[in-house]
Amino acid sequence: MKKLFSVILALISINAFSQASSAGIKVNEERLEGRIFELAKFGKDINGKGYRVAFTKGDQEGRAWFINIMKKAGLQVSIDFAGNIIGKRNGKNPLLHPIAFGSHIDMVPDGGNYDGCVGSIGALEIIEVLNDSNTVTEHPLEVIIFSNEEGGTIGSMAMAGHLTTEGLKQVSQSGLTMADGIKAIGGNPDSLQYSIRKKGEIKAFLELHIEQGGILEKENVQIGVVEGIVGIVHWEVTVDGFANHAGTTPMNMRKDALLAASKLVIAVDEVINNVPGNQVGTIGKMEVMPGAYNVIPGRVTMGLEIRDLSYEKIGSLYRDIEKRAATIAAASGTTITFQHQANESTPALTDKILQGKIAASAKALGYTYKFMQSGAGHDSQEISWIAPVAMIFVPSVSGISHSPKEFTKGKDMANGVKVLLNTILALDKE
Amino acid sequence: MKKLFSVILALISINAFSQASSAGIKVNEERLEGRIFELAKFGKDINGKGYRVAFTKGDQEGRAWFINIMKKAGLQVSIDFAGNIIGKRNGKNPLLHPIAFGSHIDMVPDGGNYDGCVGSIGALEIIEVLNDSNTVTEHPLEVIIFSNEEGGTIGSMAMAGHLTTEGLKQVSQSGLTMADGIKAIGGNPDSLQYSIRKKGEIKAFLELHIEQGGILEKENVQIGVVEGIVGIVHWEVTVDGFANHAGTTPMNMRKDALLAASKLVIAVDEVINNVPGNQVGTIGKMEVMPGAYNVIPGRVTMGLEIRDLSYEKIGSLYRDIEKRAATIAAASGTTITFQHQANESTPALTDKILQGKIAASAKALGYTYKFMQSGAGHDSQEISWIAPVAMIFVPSVSGISHSPKEFTKGKDMANGVKVLLNTILALDKE
Repeated sequence: MKKLFSVILALISINAFSQASSAGIKVNEERLEGRIFELAKFGKDINGKGYRVAFTKGDQEGRAWFINIMKKAGLQVSIDFAGNIIGKRNGKNPLLHPIAFGSHIDMVPDGGNYDGCVGSIGALEIIEVLNDSNTVTEHPLEVIIFSNEEGGTIGSMAMAGHLTTEGLKQVSQSGLTMADGIKAIGGNPDSLQYSIRKKGEIKAFLELHIEQGGILEKENVQIGVVEGIVGIVHWEVTVDGFANHAGTTPMNMRKDALLAASKLVIAVDEVINNVPGNQVGTIGKMEVMPGAYNVIPGRVTMGLEIRDLSYEKIGSLYRDIEKRAATIAAASGTTITFQHQANESTPALTDKILQGKIAASAKALGYTYKFMQSGAGHDSQEISWIAPVAMIFVPSVSGISHSPKEFTKGKDMANGVKVLLNTILALDKE
Repeated sequence: MKKLFSVILALISINAFSQASSAGIKVNEERLEGRIFELAKFGKDINGKGYRVAFTKGDQEGRAWFINIMKKAGLQVSIDFAGNIIGKRNGKNPLLHPIAFGSHIDMVPDGGNYDGCVGSIGALEIIEVLNDSNTVTEHPLEVIIFSNEEGGTIGSMAMAGHLTTEGLKQVSQSGLTMADGIKAIGGNPDSLQYSIRKKGEIKAFLELHIEQGGILEKENVQIGVVEGIVGIVHWEVTVDGFANHAGTTPMNMRKDALLAASKLVIAVDEVINNVPGNQVGTIGKMEVMPGAYNVIPGRVTMGLEIRDLSYEKIGSLYRDIEKRAATIAAASGTTITFQHQANESTPALTDKILQGKIAASAKALGYTYKFMQSGAGHDSQEISWIAPVAMIFVPSVSGISHSPKEFTKGKDMANGVKVLLNTILALDKE
């Protein structure tokens, strides 16, 4: 009776096809969340705060733990010259290009335990459930754990062939240069060219990740289908007024750089909000000089960031901000200059077909889902240069990220892994 | 002929009385300006910038030079226990209370050569011209050069009995505590009580000073008759929002502490400008945390200063700002708190009769003059607790002060000394 009832249920299910493809395959939520907690033990600063910063001792220990579990799960593990961990599982047809998935396990200082880790441990869970159900895919599979994502998507840049000699000289948060850091985790910066994957060599790269924002939670949606990863452009803005005695300079004889800067902060907010869309604009840093109670600020420097999926839109918003700045400068007797910063990242669109497969998987599993952008940068952004990529988001509680308060529920992580699994299996059928 | 012509001129002069009282007494503009340049040589930092900061080697050398000239001018020089230099000149009637005048010769780091120095060297010039013309006043005269004015009117505070044990422990710009600094210039912090001057002991204290603002220059007025020295109140303002990822947090889900702080900066400017008067309000310092391009500011601290001649008005302006802050906080989901700082100085009104005598002297000399407030703090503020005080302002070029660009023309300095001299002589007749 019980069995018959199940069969009927399966027949009336709206997701009969996907269920069939992953029939008997169960994601183990307890194992998944347990490993998140286990990984969280590696990498602490002297105050006990999360500090699994790339290349540090904590990062090295976390990677060793991770490699060990990968091996136990039967993966053939190697470290490429950029320090990326690659775990391979053979498919039935060795001539097919591999389906790759994964994320990163390094964190920002005082960071959380979900950013990157959900996609990394989730990828491992995919291998475990395939093992549990003795499933062998047609395509080879690759679990990829990229090195130093938080320090500038270093590992994925190297894999896409974008890591330059100049970039290798930069000092990472660990205190080591990128080159020395890569050495510290078993890579070899002198042989990076052998870690470059050619375009077409990987069938697809899929990344499960926490949203890091509050949209899914606010709208009570379980799965985010990422349409693209925003481009990020930075400008250093300098407002020059005239520093003078705050007691003896009447209000109408001042050239107060902070007053002008404050008007610009508000103008940025207005320009960004004035057009429809998901663009964001932020002034996150500001320095006021000389910086005393009794001196009218003579100079203010600040950091302006604009993010959007369209590079053209970023440009158009910036030009509007420039116009507002010119008006503010003229009215206040100050000068305002913008210096474009070199570290910009261009927007990366995810693959439309992969997006559709993720949406179909979510739908088939009965999950609510929405198409959305990623406001944060990810390794997928770099990999999009060499392979079709897609990302699956799961909700972040209160939208908090890059913080010890970062949290995603076990159930939500498991949902994400299920969608990832069904997407891989659907892709494998092609 | 020439002499007769002069007599006629004197007779038709509108300032016959004052001219008569200082007849034959000539201020030596060249000597005055020459000494400004000489004093400027003392106290330089390693880059050659002005650094005659109180208690430093440069301050000690400048004081030694000054004391030497005072002695050459026949003054009986002593240093009181607070390090103030006092030069006495006997009057005809030793029973009369002394008429005192002077200023300070210490400077802020990277400061100018006129703030304090004009009043100090001007006071010396008064003695010189009295000597030149063999004039002996009825009242004894005192030239007072206060110690460490820029570090908190330390010398005048001590003379008024306001320098506390706690105040002596504070570390001055020189790196020494106030107590050790006072020792370094020949004072004795353990005997400060003997430097206190009782109320009524000094007939009047007159201070010639550069305006440090641009009002006299802008209005083309030669002499400022100071009505009072503003009170200064400081608050540390803290805006608490929520630091979050600048890429993943949509504009409408932010609690941006800097956006709220910027609105408050503008509100302060509006509140101060909304009422008639000479009040000034400044936000001169601001710190934005955590302070990165890609993080929405979670906390901003800033320094609010309000100055006015009326303590009640300062309070009323502050309450208006508090109200505006409450509205901004409510609208932005932030909290804004104000912490009143302990270092407030209360407004000090100058003596009306002395003001009248200064105005009469200026008028008699044919100078344009205006009644105005002092936006900066001065030693006169402290001395007003123990004696009637008055201040004479001369124009600052471009209103610049506390800067190497600080400048006052020789002619303007000489005008100020003449007004001071005539005021002293008028006072001496009483």
